Amino acid sequence: MKFVKNYIEENKDRFLNELFDLIRIPSISSLSENKNDMLRAAEYWKKSMLDAGADKAEVMPSDGNPVVFGEKMIDPKLPTVLVYGHYDVMPVDPIDLWTTAPFDPQVRDGKIFARGADDDKGQAFMHAKAFELMVKTGNLPCNVKFMVEGEEEIGSPSLGKWCEQHKEMLKADIILVSDTGMIAPDIPSITTGLRGLAFMEVKVTGPNRDLHSGLFGGAVANPANVLAKMIASLTDDDGHIIIPGFYDDVLEVSLEERAEMAKAPFNLDEYKKAIDVKEVHGEKGYSSSERTGIRPSLDVNGIWGGYTGEGAKTVLPSVAQAKISMRLVPHQDHHKIAELFEKHFKAIAPDWVKVEVKSLHGGQGYVSPTDMTAYRAADKAYTDTFGKKPVPVRSGGSIPIISTFEQVLDTKSILMGFGLESDAIHSPNENFPLFNFYKGIETIVHFYHHFAEMSK
Amino acid sequence: MKFVKNYIEENKDRFLNELFDLIRIPSISSLSENKNDMLRAAEYWKKSMLDAGADKAEVMPSDGNPVVFGEKMIDPKLPTVLVYGHYDVMPVDPIDLWTTAPFDPQVRDGKIFARGADDDKGQAFMHAKAFELMVKTGNLPCNVKFMVEGEEEIGSPSLGKWCEQHKEMLKADIILVSDTGMIAPDIPSITTGLRGLAFMEVKVTGPNRDLHSGLFGGAVANPANVLAKMIASLTDDDGHIIIPGFYDDVLEVSLEERAEMAKAPFNLDEYKKAIDVKEVHGEKGYSSSERTGIRPSLDVNGIWGGYTGEGAKTVLPSVAQAKISMRLVPHQDHHKIAELFEKHFKAIAPDWVKVEVKSLHGGQGYVSPTDMTAYRAADKAYTDTFGKKPVPVRSGGSIPIISTFEQVLDTKSILMGFGLESDAIHSPNENFPLFNFYKGIETIVHFYHHFAEMSK
Repeated sequence: MKFVKNYIEENKDRFLNELFDLIRIPSISSLSENKNDMLRAAEYWKKSMLDAGADKAEVMPSDGNPVVFGEKMIDPKLPTVLVYGHYDVMPVDPIDLWTTAPFDPQVRDGKIFARGADDDKGQAFMHAKAFELMVKTGNLPCNVKFMVEGEEEIGSPSLGKWCEQHKEMLKADIILVSDTGMIAPDIPSITTGLRGLAFMEVKVTGPNRDLHSGLFGGAVANPANVLAKMIASLTDDDGHIIIPGFYDDVLEVSLEERAEMAKAPFNLDEYKKAIDVKEVHGEKGYSSSERTGIRPSLDVNGIWGGYTGEGAKTVLPSVAQAKISMRLVPHQDHHKIAELFEKHFKAIAPDWVKVEVKSLHGGQGYVSPTDMTAYRAADKAYTDTFGKKPVPVRSGGSIPIISTFEQVLDTKSILMGFGLESDAIHSPNENFPLFNFYKGIETIVHFYHHFAEMSK
Repeated sequence: MKFVKNYIEENKDRFLNELFDLIRIPSISSLSENKNDMLRAAEYWKKSMLDAGADKAEVMPSDGNPVVFGEKMIDPKLPTVLVYGHYDVMPVDPIDLWTTAPFDPQVRDGKIFARGADDDKGQAFMHAKAFELMVKTGNLPCNVKFMVEGEEEIGSPSLGKWCEQHKEMLKADIILVSDTGMIAPDIPSITTGLRGLAFMEVKVTGPNRDLHSGLFGGAVANPANVLAKMIASLTDDDGHIIIPGFYDDVLEVSLEERAEMAKAPFNLDEYKKAIDVKEVHGEKGYSSSERTGIRPSLDVNGIWGGYTGEGAKTVLPSVAQAKISMRLVPHQDHHKIAELFEKHFKAIAPDWVKVEVKSLHGGQGYVSPTDMTAYRAADKAYTDTFGKKPVPVRSGGSIPIISTFEQVLDTKSILMGFGLESDAIHSPNENFPLFNFYKGIETIVHFYHHFAEMSK
């Protein structure tokens, strides 16, 4: 397999430049003002697929942003790999914390800095380049399909239906995804579980207008104080979530399995140091890895109300709002959880405020078996390129569409992620090490090779 | 006193136009970008004093925004009235709730709509015009001094020291202020008590950067959730403030005095309807008027953290912040309360966050006796012009500088306010009825007359 390293070495600057052109398109799916950039990013992907050697590629409409589909079918008897990725990215605020502009990719300290450098432009683009490598060197051992969507960061609201409509076209033996991370730079890992998500927005309204806090303060309930009390009541001091029925369907993991998981390397001191907290805090009775891997959580993603500018303004605000999301574990249904949340949040609202609750999006969790062919092929590929066996890991993140694929297409996914915790995805100064980018391409080619061999 | 009404009638359009020119200057004291407008507003006041008939007027430096001083001394044997007002105004956000631009005054339904229309450009300017009326018609019965500052809305941080430096110049028998309100359009009132204020800003920091709420949610404390819990814990369900020592110095008002206060007209149904709340909520055991008049309060004036834009962003924020102010009653010292708050807020901070607390500003409460000459003169003036005796009222608002005047200048203040609750001061669509503007000028002239008579 020497041709793999050689081809990457000969083309590495071009690979990077092509990725940079993709990154420069500010395809933020949650902002309507960036609508046109979604199309530009989709067209760029279509061109990339064709340039890499696809027989055909198309920007296909969906109910939301378009999906780019491409394929190269070399032999119907060979296994088919369906690559999934997304061309949309997260918003960039707080913008002033970025060292360089988010859509002007820069290499510093061996890392690409930009929004999307990892999630998921950098990681998805490795697949385009691995595919190109196999085609151009005459080493493609499988049929390949690509499906690159533009709504992952807002919960893939249109892709489930789109998959329903194109089941035949999407037929594959495995779905290959790089949108997760590795435990550490030198410890490859394969994500075997993902959490689900229920993302809510709440609005608490007190008086019909902002009031003078002197003339009214003490006599009229302040919606910001009320919202704080309502949010505070959603979790107890032991980190349990206090929403009736919330834990009913949680898949309890056996002590044996937890003992097995506890063997994965984890250094709490380094973890705390990396994010600069004196202590971690979470659900009592679980380790940090368990708190994200096998337990649900509830986080305020944003909160706002009243005067937030410079200096003092003695206002009793009319409205206070928050975005609150819950990460879910297998067997928790995100629709049910969203309903439980809404019912509870309205039930705890006192008479002196009005409360609105809406569900912004959601997705189910996913568990991937470690005995399927694709897992074993990935295991071998990492062992080839990193020199050590990858660790199976349950991630705390959510890729809601992965469970949808299983339901709609009846196809399992293999999650070969090359990101690092320090990549700061969704944060200012998102980055992706060049090492991981090139090593990812190499490992993906090895995966195809083993997957074709083991599928014989 | 027919000349009063006549002069107002003849000059009413000009009075209004002059006020509008003052309002058009966006003199927001809490925003550094409006620094130059502070000077423009001060210069406008200087010109207004001179045009009205002052012997001299000057824009005088202070440690902050300048103070405008003017005077007309007609006879050292006559009593001297020192008029206090402020040329600065509150910020204007949320700007999209204004029907017309805040600094473009418009008359609709008999009311002036603009930031500062009431607080305090409209109310202070009545004094300039009342003074002009007395001078131009040859009816000035007292010596008059004006002191108009530009930092009232940020707590008058420089005026105390400035008064210390100009004690002799500011010598007066009474300080006359229009920066408060009336109970209702047909019920004149004199404010006999003001609450103090301690305005704090808090910052809760968790991880050193925004984190992905999937990868970290549940394992790392979320500062927005923590801030909600901390704020929630500051008050109990009965509306008591849970800060050790907070109530220690509160002046308890006797049941007899409370019974007397309860005679002031108050319609709870209309109160709730006006601000559109189903129920009011406040400290258990006290009426709505008592909750603002004789009891302290604690309000979140602003809260912010994490993603507050459109749509969903699954972020675990690094920082959450709030502006929290406490209204204080007589005998509570704002310095002590700010210290108690800071100490307590830091004490309740869990190990998994860092907490910063700063005091933005503060001021002491004030009580004005109803048996002083100025009160009796004001009582007569309102009775002349409104046809009924004014009601003495303890306001929930704060004018911190009023208690400073007493301490530094050893001079009492008389608070003749002509604003209405519906004026929406500090809110979008602030307004001031034309009736109140002209009636205020008339009543002020009557006050001077009675005050001079009664001081003989």
